[in-house]
Amino acid sequence: MKKIEHIGIAVKDIEASNGLFESLFGKAHYKIEDVESEGVKTSFFQCGPNKIELLQATKDDSPIAKFIEKKGEGIHHIAFAVDNIEEEIKRLTEDGFKMIHEKPKKGADNKRIAFLHPKSTNGVLIELCQDIKD
Amino acid sequence: MKKIEHIGIAVKDIEASNGLFESLFGKAHYKIEDVESEGVKTSFFQCGPNKIELLQATKDDSPIAKFIEKKGEGIHHIAFAVDNIEEEIKRLTEDGFKMIHEKPKKGADNKRIAFLHPKSTNGVLIELCQDIKD
Repeated sequence: MKKIEHIGIAVKDIEASNGLFESLFGKAHYKIEDVESEGVKTSFFQCGPNKIELLQATKDDSPIAKFIEKKGEGIHHIAFAVDNIEEEIKRLTEDGFKMIHEKPKKGADNKRIAFLHPKSTNGVLIELCQDIKD
Repeated sequence: MKKIEHIGIAVKDIEASNGLFESLFGKAHYKIEDVESEGVKTSFFQCGPNKIELLQATKDDSPIAKFIEKKGEGIHHIAFAVDNIEEEIKRLTEDGFKMIHEKPKKGADNKRIAFLHPKSTNGVLIELCQDIKD
């Protein structure tokens, strides 16, 4: 775990939230990206070494739509940057953590990602992510 | 906003959670601190330039006890490091954000802190914090 790569925040209206976070940080987002496989539209803000990822559902059965229905808008997950995602998955599984993804998948912002199950992490949804080298 | 200073996570049993996060990060916490004024016991883990702050209530009327009662264990707040907390409070208030603390107060881990009201920030509880110079 090298750093907090980003915090994912579930929002209902990404255009309105873009304005809000632009005011908060005093600068605009640097990227918008649709992740069709997850049914989400994302928007990224840089904050020093870290990022904020806004997430809006684009389908009713998107995990983000379900999260907002259950808990309302707010912090959805913490993503940690790792150097070798396969090794981290192996280490954490051996240490008793439960993975949602036992193998990395393609995520937003040019990353390979895997989520841990929040039942094994104090209710916190944790993502591992590794940069895809160009 | 220079970086994510820390993520605060509300937990029921800080001893158990210390073990869990020690396994997650592969290293122990670097500090435990009681913040009597807030009715919380805290534990800090370093992760590169960022920290994770575990928060356990020590009083029934602590904000953390109320949070867990309402939402369960999980991510409680995001704290951003700032250079000049008075200037940030002024800038954000002028931009329409609502502060819980209009003046900075003493927080854990040798910081001056102020929280924004989550109603003005998409349901996300945001803390500003500035290092107290020794």
